Amino acid sequence: MSKEITTREKDYAQWYNDIVLKAGLADYSAVRGCMVIKPYGFALWENMRDQLDKMFKETGHQNAYFPLFIPKSFLSKEAAHVEGFAKECAVVTHYRLMNDPDSGGIVVDPTAKLEEELIVRPTSETIIWNTYKTWIQSYRDLPLLINQWANVVRWEMRTRLFLRTTEFLWQEGHTAHATAQEAIDETIQMLNVYATFAEEWMAMPVIKGVKSENERFAGAVDTYCIEALMQDGKALQAGTSHFLGQNFAKAFDVQFTDKENKLDYVWATSWGVSTRLVGALIMAHSDDDGLILPPKIAPVQVVMIPIYKNDEQKKLIDEKVKLFMEDFKALGIKVKYDDDDNNRPGWKFAEYELKGVPVRIAIGARDLQNNVVEVARRDTKEKVSVSMDGLANTIFVLLNDIQKNIYDKAKNFRDNNIRNADTWQEFEQMLDKGGFVAAHWDGTAETENKIKELTKATIRCIPLNNKQENGKCILTKKPSKERVLFARAY
Amino acid sequence: MSKEITTREKDYAQWYNDIVLKAGLADYSAVRGCMVIKPYGFALWENMRDQLDKMFKETGHQNAYFPLFIPKSFLSKEAAHVEGFAKECAVVTHYRLMNDPDSGGIVVDPTAKLEEELIVRPTSETIIWNTYKTWIQSYRDLPLLINQWANVVRWEMRTRLFLRTTEFLWQEGHTAHATAQEAIDETIQMLNVYATFAEEWMAMPVIKGVKSENERFAGAVDTYCIEALMQDGKALQAGTSHFLGQNFAKAFDVQFTDKENKLDYVWATSWGVSTRLVGALIMAHSDDDGLILPPKIAPVQVVMIPIYKNDEQKKLIDEKVKLFMEDFKALGIKVKYDDDDNNRPGWKFAEYELKGVPVRIAIGARDLQNNVVEVARRDTKEKVSVSMDGLANTIFVLLNDIQKNIYDKAKNFRDNNIRNADTWQEFEQMLDKGGFVAAHWDGTAETENKIKELTKATIRCIPLNNKQENGKCILTKKPSKERVLFARAY
Repeated sequence: MSKEITTREKDYAQWYNDIVLKAGLADYSAVRGCMVIKPYGFALWENMRDQLDKMFKETGHQNAYFPLFIPKSFLSKEAAHVEGFAKECAVVTHYRLMNDPDSGGIVVDPTAKLEEELIVRPTSETIIWNTYKTWIQSYRDLPLLINQWANVVRWEMRTRLFLRTTEFLWQEGHTAHATAQEAIDETIQMLNVYATFAEEWMAMPVIKGVKSENERFAGAVDTYCIEALMQDGKALQAGTSHFLGQNFAKAFDVQFTDKENKLDYVWATSWGVSTRLVGALIMAHSDDDGLILPPKIAPVQVVMIPIYKNDEQKKLIDEKVKLFMEDFKALGIKVKYDDDDNNRPGWKFAEYELKGVPVRIAIGARDLQNNVVEVARRDTKEKVSVSMDGLANTIFVLLNDIQKNIYDKAKNFRDNNIRNADTWQEFEQMLDKGGFVAAHWDGTAETENKIKELTKATIRCIPLNNKQENGKCILTKKPSKERVLFARAY
Repeated sequence: MSKEITTREKDYAQWYNDIVLKAGLADYSAVRGCMVIKPYGFALWENMRDQLDKMFKETGHQNAYFPLFIPKSFLSKEAAHVEGFAKECAVVTHYRLMNDPDSGGIVVDPTAKLEEELIVRPTSETIIWNTYKTWIQSYRDLPLLINQWANVVRWEMRTRLFLRTTEFLWQEGHTAHATAQEAIDETIQMLNVYATFAEEWMAMPVIKGVKSENERFAGAVDTYCIEALMQDGKALQAGTSHFLGQNFAKAFDVQFTDKENKLDYVWATSWGVSTRLVGALIMAHSDDDGLILPPKIAPVQVVMIPIYKNDEQKKLIDEKVKLFMEDFKALGIKVKYDDDDNNRPGWKFAEYELKGVPVRIAIGARDLQNNVVEVARRDTKEKVSVSMDGLANTIFVLLNDIQKNIYDKAKNFRDNNIRNADTWQEFEQMLDKGGFVAAHWDGTAETENKIKELTKATIRCIPLNNKQENGKCILTKKPSKERVLFARAY
C-alpha cells in the first residue's frame, strides 16, 4: 500500500481516511459499518482509556459490567428514550443455527425463536436502572457511582472510521443520587473531567456548554457537552454528560427512603465518551504528512534510529543507545529503538512521521565522535543537533514543550474561528468560513430546525457562564438574551 | 438480605452462589443467563486482567479489537469449528424496531431484515482470520501476535454465575506464524503464562496438559489446558491454548511468501481465559464464612477498623491510622480505613471476612496506649497482637505469607486428591471420592465416551511430560502407554 496521503486541501475526508488506514490505526471489516481497531490505534485508545479510568476512580467511581443485551420491552419504558434509541439497532431474534439439509450450509433454526427479542445495547440506561431497582432501597445506598467500559451498537446508515461506526467502544457512567442538586453537581463534575482530559491530555481545546432541546440526549433533562473544532472548520461533540432527573427512576420504579423516612424517586446522571475521540484527535492536530500525537497519549513518545555503514559502527551506536534508553525509561519516557535493518533510515523517518511519534532521534557514527544527536520534533518539523550530555532531560523538557505547542496551535485556530454574526447574511458567510458562529436565537426548536434546514448548521451548545446580552434572533428577529454557538458538525 | 452463607457440607452449589451474591461479586440480570458483574467482582477481574495483560505484553503481544458480529457464512468455513460453535449462539436478524400501531409498544420492523444474519461472536477465529488475510503477505508480516479483551456470547442452556454464563468477558489471543514449530512454541508459551498466573497470582495450583480428541477446541489440531481442582473434588478447566495448525489459514485462504519466495499457508494459535477464573478462585480457596482472596489479586489487601467509645478516642485513632496508611501505601499495600459510623465493628468484621480481605487490623483506644494493634488474617483466622513499630513491614511480610499459605493449602489438597486406579472398581470408587484419577486408557474417543456415560467423568488432560508406563485401559483392557487424568468437572 502506498503511504502517500491525500492533502487536506485536496480532499479533507480522504486525508482523514488515509491517515487512519496508513498509520495503522484501524481497518474496515467484513461487517457493515464495523471497524477493526489495529494495534497502534488500540494502544492510543488504551492510553486514553487508562487516563480517563484513573480520573473516574479519583472522583469516586467504580467499574462494573452489565449485560450486552436489553429486553425489547425495557426500551419502551422511558418515552423519550425509546424515540431516540429503539429505532436503529441490532435485534437478536433467535438463539440457534442448524445445518441446512439442502445447501449444506447453516441456517437459522426457526424453532429457536426468542419469546422476547433482545436488543444489542445502544446505551445502557434501561438495563442498568432495572438493576439499580434491586440495589437501592435507602439513602444509605446512595450515591451509587458506577462506570462501565463496553461496546455498544447503533445501526448507523452512514459510517466513518472512529467517527461513526455501527459498533464502537466507550465508557458510560451511570450514577444515582438522593437529591437533584447532587446529581446536577455530578453531571458538571464529569463534564469538567472530560474537558480536563481533552485539553490537558489530548491537547484539544473544548467549549463546555449545554445542549438545546433538539440535541438533548433521549431521556435527559439536560445534556452538557464539550465541543471541539476540527481543522476543516467543523465542530465535533467530544463528550456528553446528562442530568437525567427522575426520568429513569420513574420508568423503572426506583425509589428510596430518605433520612426523614419519606419515599422518593432517585435522581440520575449518565455520561460517556467513545472511540470517536480517536477521530477527533486525528482531525484536531494532524497534517499532510500524517498523524501528530500529543506526547501525553502517544504510544511511542521517542523513536531512536541508528545510521550506520557497517556492523562496527552499528555496534558502537547500539552501546550508546542502550544507555540513553535506560535514562529515558528512568524519566518515564516511552522510547523505541528501531534498528530493524530491513528498512532504510529514510523509510523509517517517513514511517514515524506518518505515525505521529512526537520526537525522532537520529544517531550516526559521526555523531558519536561529536557527542551529539539529531533531534526532530514532529509538530513543527524542526531538526536540531543536541548534545548527548543530559539528553534524556533535554527530551523530557522538549516533550512538554511539544504538548503545549500542539495545544496552543489548536487553541489559536479555535479562537480565531469563533465569530459573532448579527445579520442572516453574516451568519451564512461565517458558517461557510467554518468554525463556530455566535448568534442570537429565539430559543425555539422550530427556529433551530429551520436554521439547520437552511444552513446544515446546528446549535453546538449554549456555553457555560455565557455572557448575557440583549439581541434579536438571527432568523426570526425575536428577542434573545444570549448568543449560542452554531456550527456545521461531525 | 441475610449475610448467612450455606455451608459447603450442606450444599456446595448453594454455598458458591451465596458467596457470589452476598460478597457482592455479581448479580443475576433480567436477561436469561447473563450476569451483572458488581463493582467488587469487577475490581477482582480488573486485577486479574491487568496482570495477565502485562504478561501478554511482556511476551510481545499487542492488543487490538475486532467486530462483535460475525457474518453467518464465516462460521461455515472451518468444518470442525462450525460444528462446535455455530449451534448455540445469538443471531441478529433485523436492524430496526418500529412503533406498533396496535399495542403502542415497539415491534421488529419486518422490512429491516438483514440479507445475511450476523452472529454475536462466540469466539473470534473466523472474523480475525478473515482480517489477517489482508494483513499477511510475506514472512516479514510474521509473527503476528495479537490479543483482544472482549465480551462473547454462547447460548448455554444451564448457566451459573461466573462459571458458565451466556455472555462472558475474556481475552482471546490470535497469533500467526511462518512455521509449525514457532506456532507450537507460542501455544506452549501461553500455556505457561496461564499456569504462572494461576499459581503465582491466584494461588491456585494447576496441571498442564493436552486434551484428548473429544475435549479439543473445535478447529484445533491440539488443545493444551490448565486444570485446577475445586474443594468439592471436581476439576475446572481454567485456561486453554490451541495449536490450530493451518486449519483457519486454509479456511480463509491466508498464505504468505517465505524467505525462499515460496507460498505457504500461515500457522496459527489461539488462547483464552475468561471471567470463569473468578468462579475458580472462589471455589479453590473460600470457606463457610465467605471469600478467601490471595493478597496479590485482592482489591483491598488490608482493612483497618477503629474501635472507640467517643469522638476524642476516634480522633486519636484517626491520627495514628493516617500515618499507617501512608506507610502502607509507600509499600504498595492496598489499604482501606473503614470508619463509617453507621456500622458497628462486629458487623464490619463479618463483612470483611465475607469479602475475603486478607488482613484485618483493629485499633482501639487502649491499643494506642499499649502501642499495639490486633491483626487478624483471613486465611487461618488467627488473631495476634502486633507492635505498632514497623507495622507496615510486618503486614508486608504477612501478606506474602498468606499468599504462600493459600497456595500451599490448595496444593496439598490437590496433591492428596490425585489417585491411581488400576481396576474399574477402584476407578469408580476413586471418582466418587472426588479429585483426579490417573488411569490407563486405550486412546479412543469411543472408550472415553463410554466412560463418560458410565461415570460422568471426562479426561481432563494428558499431563505434559507424562510418565510413560505400560498398562491396560481401565475399561477395555487394551494396551496403553501412559495414564491420563480423569475427573468429574465443571
